[in-house]
Amino acid sequence: MKKYRILLALFVFVGIISCKEDLKSLPVQPKALTVSDPLPSWNDGKTKNDIIAFVKKVTTEGTEDFVPVEDRIATFDNDGTLWAEQPLYFQLFYALDQIKVMAPEHPEWKTTEPFKSVLENDMEGVLKSGKEGLVKIGIVSSTNVDVETFKESVKQWMATAKHPRFDQPYSKVVYQPMLELLDYLKANGFTNFIVSGGDIDFMRAWATETYGIPSYQIVGSSLKSAFDNTDAKASIIRLPAEEFADRGDGKPIAISKHIGKKPILAAGNSDGDLQMLQYTDSNKYPSIKMFVHHTDEVREWAYDRNSPIGGLNEGLDEAIAKNWTIADMKNDWNTIFPFEN
Amino acid sequence: MKKYRILLALFVFVGIISCKEDLKSLPVQPKALTVSDPLPSWNDGKTKNDIIAFVKKVTTEGTEDFVPVEDRIATFDNDGTLWAEQPLYFQLFYALDQIKVMAPEHPEWKTTEPFKSVLENDMEGVLKSGKEGLVKIGIVSSTNVDVETFKESVKQWMATAKHPRFDQPYSKVVYQPMLELLDYLKANGFTNFIVSGGDIDFMRAWATETYGIPSYQIVGSSLKSAFDNTDAKASIIRLPAEEFADRGDGKPIAISKHIGKKPILAAGNSDGDLQMLQYTDSNKYPSIKMFVHHTDEVREWAYDRNSPIGGLNEGLDEAIAKNWTIADMKNDWNTIFPFEN
Repeated sequence: MKKYRILLALFVFVGIISCKEDLKSLPVQPKALTVSDPLPSWNDGKTKNDIIAFVKKVTTEGTEDFVPVEDRIATFDNDGTLWAEQPLYFQLFYALDQIKVMAPEHPEWKTTEPFKSVLENDMEGVLKSGKEGLVKIGIVSSTNVDVETFKESVKQWMATAKHPRFDQPYSKVVYQPMLELLDYLKANGFTNFIVSGGDIDFMRAWATETYGIPSYQIVGSSLKSAFDNTDAKASIIRLPAEEFADRGDGKPIAISKHIGKKPILAAGNSDGDLQMLQYTDSNKYPSIKMFVHHTDEVREWAYDRNSPIGGLNEGLDEAIAKNWTIADMKNDWNTIFPFEN
Repeated sequence: MKKYRILLALFVFVGIISCKEDLKSLPVQPKALTVSDPLPSWNDGKTKNDIIAFVKKVTTEGTEDFVPVEDRIATFDNDGTLWAEQPLYFQLFYALDQIKVMAPEHPEWKTTEPFKSVLENDMEGVLKSGKEGLVKIGIVSSTNVDVETFKESVKQWMATAKHPRFDQPYSKVVYQPMLELLDYLKANGFTNFIVSGGDIDFMRAWATETYGIPSYQIVGSSLKSAFDNTDAKASIIRLPAEEFADRGDGKPIAISKHIGKKPILAAGNSDGDLQMLQYTDSNKYPSIKMFVHHTDEVREWAYDRNSPIGGLNEGLDEAIAKNWTIADMKNDWNTIFPFEN
């Protein structure tokens, strides 16, 4: 447990969900034949009905619940909400792999910790190097580099690295029902944003292609940076110091700063997303606050309270108390990953 | 001169252009009859030709200069580039007027500086209160308030306040040729952003309506902020401390943070915009770097080198040396403000 917390200290990330109290879905409603189901990976039931009813409500002109297109803002956490985050936040795998990529130019790493352990795939050894070692891995792998070069490196990694459990590229370890939700919202005039605890540049390297969301609709944690115009090759350098942590209170602050409007739909999966949902709940328009609940230990993972990654405690209490929307992975999703099909 | 510099210290703003060396426009080209001129307020000549040739070039598929829609990013400074900035940055007028709006609840201001002078329209007196007095005006008028309330206040001001010289609402003291350029770019698949030294919340209160640019495409300077969920009325509070100054090096840093791509077109008018233009110049795609040059002392103002507001020194040197685009207000624009028509 503790070792994961140490890993967390390294990067600026967020969390998850999954709880003991199973939220019973309502009896399946007889579904009218429709030309196309916008959310085919969602089982019929309360959650799916609530989403579709909400979208219909806010897009029907002439009613008091109508929301103009420019105010149809939707914000999504990433880790644990749009893609998986077990057994570790995927960005951590990038950092470890990047050390291996850089190793040929650093022969001394063969005998220097924490690099030696990384190169020998010895996770025990890596963690034994403590916070200091992990910070070294983070700095060496992801900072003191210009943004474009960093993003290019992440892109190359995404094109080749595979998730340890599913043996699939990380860009495929995303939730098919959430991809459908993004598409459905977009088709209904929503503007989708990612508001993630993950590094903003890390995400922009792949998230546009994966989710169909432009770089300027991707918000995340960030490092301090500097403008460098040496030899008139202007670039932005990622400095080895955190500037902004996009989690907890940081999420509504980031939404205010980057978007300038309150969302009418927000989805998260951990206590780090709670404030974003509270902010959304204060919208003058009708709104949906959704937690993705990790309840499927067979197809994905089951975790929530006191989970070292993606813990969901007060968030779950508040969601239940306020009757927010819970996407129960086991019961609400007939497909979890696109590669299942 | 000095008094303006003090005023500048109060807010987080930017600058301008205008220089002695008149840049001769090329002889007017015979213009082919076209169904519609996308830039009717621009005189025929090199500047207009360059802009139109650039847009045609980057939007023509199958050529090596073609730029995909998602990379057609254009960034615009605001003060002095999209709207005027004389005799003072307009946001300063808001702060002074706001003191008057708040005065009925502060009877003590009638006898307390700097408020006494503000209420008596005594600019000499206001400036005599020095930086300390001006900081007080800034804090009282624009901080310790939630973002939504602040924006509402700015909206009300924009609906009623008039520019001292033109007796027009500030939202009309914008450059007609630049409005046309924004529309022309948008019609050609560009995504327009404002990247201003002005306060991000101040601008979002009116710039969407004025320029047709959504709030999340408006970037600016910002204050520190806090999330407040008292009584479950979640809001973001503007704290009395600067967080980010969006000028100079700050502009490319803000572009990297908010947009995540280098622009292919950037327009500014002061040395505070130079780094944004340098950043744009380093794009792998063809790009336009434009300075709006304030050369018309009759219809607008003429100023550039050593101007207390909107000074343009190194920027103008670099623009001339590198053959960047200069929009000479006197020669290139047949109309400056929409209310002229």
